[in-house]
Amino acid sequence: MTGLFEGVYSTPHTQELTGSEAWLRAMLEVERALTVAAARVGLAPQSAAAAVTAACRPESFNLDALGAGAATEATPVIALVARLRSLVGPEASPYVHLAATSQDILDSAGALVARSALGPVLDDCRAVSDTLAALALEHRSTPQVGRTLLQSALVTTFGAACGNRLTGVDDALAGLEAVLRDRLAVQLGGPVGTLAGAADRAEQLIAAVAAELGLAEPVTPWHTARGRVAELAAACGILAGELAAVAQDVVLLSATELAEVEVATPGGSSAIPKKRNPAAAVLAVACAHRMPGLVATVLAGMPQELQRSAGRWQAEWGTLTEIVRLLAGTARHTRTALDGLRVDADRMHAHVDALVATGTVGGFGAAETFVDRALAAHAARTRPEGRP
Amino acid sequence: MTGLFEGVYSTPHTQELTGSEAWLRAMLEVERALTVAAARVGLAPQSAAAAVTAACRPESFNLDALGAGAATEATPVIALVARLRSLVGPEASPYVHLAATSQDILDSAGALVARSALGPVLDDCRAVSDTLAALALEHRSTPQVGRTLLQSALVTTFGAACGNRLTGVDDALAGLEAVLRDRLAVQLGGPVGTLAGAADRAEQLIAAVAAELGLAEPVTPWHTARGRVAELAAACGILAGELAAVAQDVVLLSATELAEVEVATPGGSSAIPKKRNPAAAVLAVACAHRMPGLVATVLAGMPQELQRSAGRWQAEWGTLTEIVRLLAGTARHTRTALDGLRVDADRMHAHVDALVATGTVGGFGAAETFVDRALAAHAARTRPEGRP
Amino acid sequence: MTGLFEGVYSTPHTQELTGSEAWLRAMLEVERALTVAAARVGLAPQSAAAAVTAACRPESFNLDALGAGAATEATPVIALVARLRSLVGPEASPYVHLAATSQDILDSAGALVARSALGPVLDDCRAVSDTLAALALEHRSTPQVGRTLLQSALVTTFGAACGNRLTGVDDALAGLEAVLRDRLAVQLGGPVGTLAGAADRAEQLIAAVAAELGLAEPVTPWHTARGRVAELAAACGILAGELAAVAQDVVLLSATELAEVEVATPGGSSAIPKKRNPAAAVLAVACAHRMPGLVATVLAGMPQELQRSAGRWQAEWGTLTEIVRLLAGTARHTRTALDGLRVDADRMHAHVDALVATGTVGGFGAAETFVDRALAAHAARTRPEGRP
Amino acid sequence: MTGLFEGVYSTPHTQELTGSEAWLRAMLEVERALTVAAARVGLAPQSAAAAVTAACRPESFNLDALGAGAATEATPVIALVARLRSLVGPEASPYVHLAATSQDILDSAGALVARSALGPVLDDCRAVSDTLAALALEHRSTPQVGRTLLQSALVTTFGAACGNRLTGVDDALAGLEAVLRDRLAVQLGGPVGTLAGAADRAEQLIAAVAAELGLAEPVTPWHTARGRVAELAAACGILAGELAAVAQDVVLLSATELAEVEVATPGGSSAIPKKRNPAAAVLAVACAHRMPGLVATVLAGMPQELQRSAGRWQAEWGTLTEIVRLLAGTARHTRTALDGLRVDADRMHAHVDALVATGTVGGFGAAETFVDRALAAHAARTRPEGRP
Repeated sequence: MTGLFEGVYSTPHTQELTGSEAWLRAMLEVERALTVAAARVGLAPQSAAAAVTAACRPESFNLDALGAGAATEATPVIALVARLRSLVGPEASPYVHLAATSQDILDSAGALVARSALGPVLDDCRAVSDTLAALALEHRSTPQVGRTLLQSALVTTFGAACGNRLTGVDDALAGLEAVLRDRLAVQLGGPVGTLAGAADRAEQLIAAVAAELGLAEPVTPWHTARGRVAELAAACGILAGELAAVAQDVVLLSATELAEVEVATPGGSSAIPKKRNPAAAVLAVACAHRMPGLVATVLAGMPQELQRSAGRWQAEWGTLTEIVRLLAGTARHTRTALDGLRVDADRMHAHVDALVATGTVGGFGAAETFVDRALAAHAARTRPEGRP
Repeated sequence: MTGLFEGVYSTPHTQELTGSEAWLRAMLEVERALTVAAARVGLAPQSAAAAVTAACRPESFNLDALGAGAATEATPVIALVARLRSLVGPEASPYVHLAATSQDILDSAGALVARSALGPVLDDCRAVSDTLAALALEHRSTPQVGRTLLQSALVTTFGAACGNRLTGVDDALAGLEAVLRDRLAVQLGGPVGTLAGAADRAEQLIAAVAAELGLAEPVTPWHTARGRVAELAAACGILAGELAAVAQDVVLLSATELAEVEVATPGGSSAIPKKRNPAAAVLAVACAHRMPGLVATVLAGMPQELQRSAGRWQAEWGTLTEIVRLLAGTARHTRTALDGLRVDADRMHAHVDALVATGTVGGFGAAETFVDRALAAHAARTRPEGRP
Repeated sequence: MTGLFEGVYSTPHTQELTGSEAWLRAMLEVERALTVAAARVGLAPQSAAAAVTAACRPESFNLDALGAGAATEATPVIALVARLRSLVGPEASPYVHLAATSQDILDSAGALVARSALGPVLDDCRAVSDTLAALALEHRSTPQVGRTLLQSALVTTFGAACGNRLTGVDDALAGLEAVLRDRLAVQLGGPVGTLAGAADRAEQLIAAVAAELGLAEPVTPWHTARGRVAELAAACGILAGELAAVAQDVVLLSATELAEVEVATPGGSSAIPKKRNPAAAVLAVACAHRMPGLVATVLAGMPQELQRSAGRWQAEWGTLTEIVRLLAGTARHTRTALDGLRVDADRMHAHVDALVATGTVGGFGAAETFVDRALAAHAARTRPEGRP
Repeated sequence: MTGLFEGVYSTPHTQELTGSEAWLRAMLEVERALTVAAARVGLAPQSAAAAVTAACRPESFNLDALGAGAATEATPVIALVARLRSLVGPEASPYVHLAATSQDILDSAGALVARSALGPVLDDCRAVSDTLAALALEHRSTPQVGRTLLQSALVTTFGAACGNRLTGVDDALAGLEAVLRDRLAVQLGGPVGTLAGAADRAEQLIAAVAAELGLAEPVTPWHTARGRVAELAAACGILAGELAAVAQDVVLLSATELAEVEVATPGGSSAIPKKRNPAAAVLAVACAHRMPGLVATVLAGMPQELQRSAGRWQAEWGTLTEIVRLLAGTARHTRTALDGLRVDADRMHAHVDALVATGTVGGFGAAETFVDRALAAHAARTRPEGRP
């Protein structure tokens, strides 16, 4: 991803939280937690834990060197561990990377990166959800033409349209929150998943590392059972899809001939000065458009070979990074598109009048009932105890 | 799907449970439930409910005519409703399809088809899971070379390999079971989601139809909020991925030079009489290979326009049908590949000996511990109260 | 694919041309051509060629038995060859399937099926192209608002819009025609690509079979080098994309608030009698929406293992079948959407007037020049010698 | 893409040739060419051409500001043009971006970026191809077991295996070369494709810009007819697939139990000192694994709305960038995996002996014939006049 397009397909903050330094920090955090946990369960001296903790500072590592190692060895962890061992000195060195394999570090680090980067993204999503709730409430009884296959059909209310989108976004948010809470797990199995280097205290060590990192404790190593990763990817893809549906509605309702809504901060044109494009909504659609292919890439990578895959696992790192970034872009742009959205209730009324003039019945049925249901469900979700 | 390849990419039973007649039966079941529910909440006379119930017999409908209607109107429901109305006569006719729109019928029918067709598929998946559990137990301590990037690495046990796969399959099974239980919902909103034809008793009618069909009751209509469909697709894709990982391991371990396992019913060759191919495992991989693209198709179809989509929704019917069929194929072939799998513990030992001879340490670490954990989790899942 | 949806996602004719019987006919045609070619190059007696030719009648083969074989052996060819050998009797039997392997038959048959089924599809595509050309000519100077991001921008002509689409469709058509002409090749290599059973006359035999089937002659066997298949899939996907762009424009311009065009045979609604949906255009969009995932499936299947793949190749048969069917559906529905399309030049004028009233300059620039260029290129393509 | 993984999923050089600065250079090159061409056809004074040429220096532009503009306006071109106009001063300013729209600049720049970045990638691909040719020649008669579904089948030669891969790679290379030569076109149509700002000399201006940039001249603007982009994406995807097939064969033949080849520069392990992983081959597989989803994203984006798309076009920039980068990674890693590949002909012989000992016939049929054909085709392609 180029800097020129960084704010198009992500946010600068997410870009940073998923960048090389963030991955480095996360890998070091895993190495640190591993030795600290080893000390806690009696597999390493406290002095080693202290030494490793002291050495795990990103500024002591050269990203270029790690990147070169990754390109040669198919993992950046070999170079990372070598450097870390040299930093801690000969006494603590045997307790660095204890019992672990490269994939233990990278999978656990990936969970940390995902959790950290998705935090602010969820905030944007919740803002979208709250704005939809506010619009649903405000326009609970604002008549609007309901359009199916882009043809005027019957009357609904703009609030009901927002309520439907609200339910969709809230459900997808709940799905991602559940994955982050339950399925982001530590990985720790050693080279072939037997944790041979810590066999006597395997369960205690895994539990201790999981506690130290705040990640779930898996039943077994998941080096080649990638359901957790796929669930994360899918939940991101589904949330992006619901958000893009919101943004696409903004684009459609902003069309010159409809003009029922207008974004607060439209984009311009390099050729037509007075053009007012729903730029943020368009970018949300663009970001989300790139998601399904990435989710498919993760799913296609699930059948991983025996104890460690020869290619499919290595494809995950960049794919997950893109998924998180594009979800961030989708969420931020959707939020921007909704912020201060101008709703032209008069134009909505005029379109309703035109439809009714063709003989169509004019009431909006149970639209308000559905608004109330959507708002009640949203309120239940967002009560203090409801938010994760 | 051609009949020639029906058993390759699905099972004959699933093919039938997702075929034209199954969809017809499901649509009629929804129309029946709708009028029965309408009678229950006082929107239709009992006589109408009785008439519709009597008329909803698949043999009274011509699939070719419905198919022709679908190709012309972009939905088979118009022709279906017209025929149903003519069957019930003028008195009951106004209570046919009451308050509903085509999509209400098709979305609800899709949920019924998915539930019905996935039942036997889940049985195959559970059989896979149980066989993996049996193999994990039997070979809890059978040493096997652990292979990473297809290179011999360290010793593990075949039971541990099976235990890891067991956990992966069990988790994915739980994911699909949860979607089937919680997210297969009735759709009922009328043309623009206001349920205008039953506005006074909208909530009661939806609840009654949901109860009649045994489907979940949605907060709002989900005509263009497709998270439910995407979750179903993703859960199927993830389960297929975990199953294919099992099958692929069978293929790899069956390779002539490894020959650590052999399927009980190998396939032959049209040219080499003594060839013994792991045909079922190969077909499981083939079925699963076709999944990610289909899941991506559903995800890409999520941003659906306003009150009803102009293309993306109509793409779902066939895509979901394929997803269910291919999951059935993946599950059946994986089950076949595992049934009676011959495990050559002697060859496994020989490979371990060869690895140890190169100087590699010989123990298998905590392999047994992970087997025990996988089996305990499996047992907890499959206690009578654990199975949905 | 269910019969209920056969006309939604394909055409009945294409369904038939890609169905089980079509595959059976194609496989028999390959077996016949193989023995006939073997006789021609002196590897088999003429009597064997005659016997095989006589025996290769589809009605002598039981599709259910072949399908059962396919599900067990991962190929229907073993059962096919056994049956064919029993039909020809002991003398000709050794010359049945001479030197070949299952994949030789299936890959060659796939090429025949694709060629045969895509013929009528190309006719539909050419009709779309010709209609676009006629519309471009008729409306060369019909002013229409040009819309970017769905916002009115500047004036163009409806003819120019049609001309742009014409060029897109024509280019994509040329792409698929080139693949059909140059890249549909015979497959013939025997079990491991050495054509061991006909080593002395390998080149002559391949050339003779290619000539007999009218397929290209490959440089080497392409059992696991799947570029040919991927090129076919991609060309179909690109053509579907260009067709769907046409159909989507019809949907957008048919929207109630624009209403600049109307399809000649709109679809109705199960709930709103006077609804006039652009059903054919919607179905074209739906069919095309299902394409990219299928193309990705073929591309993802390209890295096939050593001399024959263990799963990815077996995934191709059904995927290609779907690709051909969905392209047929896309083409047919797009054709239907354009046939007799009603263009409301008055409404187009009115929208142009409204745009000009906001101060936008009114001319349509070089729109006519681009129409002329598009028509000239189309004419060059469709001169008698230009059509393949 | 993070720097840590830059060498995993691409090459540093390609990363640079597709980065923000490369896009900026390309956009400026298009703006420059546009004014120079305008001067050539009499639409601008020479002084304006000179002023624009002088001003089009990347260092005069702030990437952060352009990036911020892109995130707000959904295109970086508005800010770019504003800055360029301020740089050239009031006299030349009217001739900056003459008649053009944002998409004209970005589409043309994308073609320049693709051409420039793919040059070195093609070099890597040709090196792969040449190495395969050398291996095919050297091992033309080296017996090797042919393996189908990973089962030993019949004898072939390692040269024949290399020859098959050679043909696959050469065909895919030819495909991409053809797209680069014929389908990378200039885009120039102005806001709605009428080139209203240069209507009198539209054809001359387009021809002049195309000549200035060395890009093909399109028949009509292709703002929403994206076949050209899709063809580029597909050709990259197909080439990646053929390369990954080579790399995957290296992985499979390197497996401990086969060990018929070994990469010259294996990767290590963070836990097992003596591990020798075919790291480069694994990374090639990983890069190629990420391609199909990206190609599908481009294909799914083809139905673009009316005169400019509201999301699908904006999704292309990042997707194409990733496609080019991942093809570069695939090519480089495949090249590395083949460079100095150690072929263990003795082990190949031993496996052949073991197969023959089971009663399998020992000859390798026409393997050498196919090698000769592959080499002849390769030689024809790579004669001085054959290389583009």
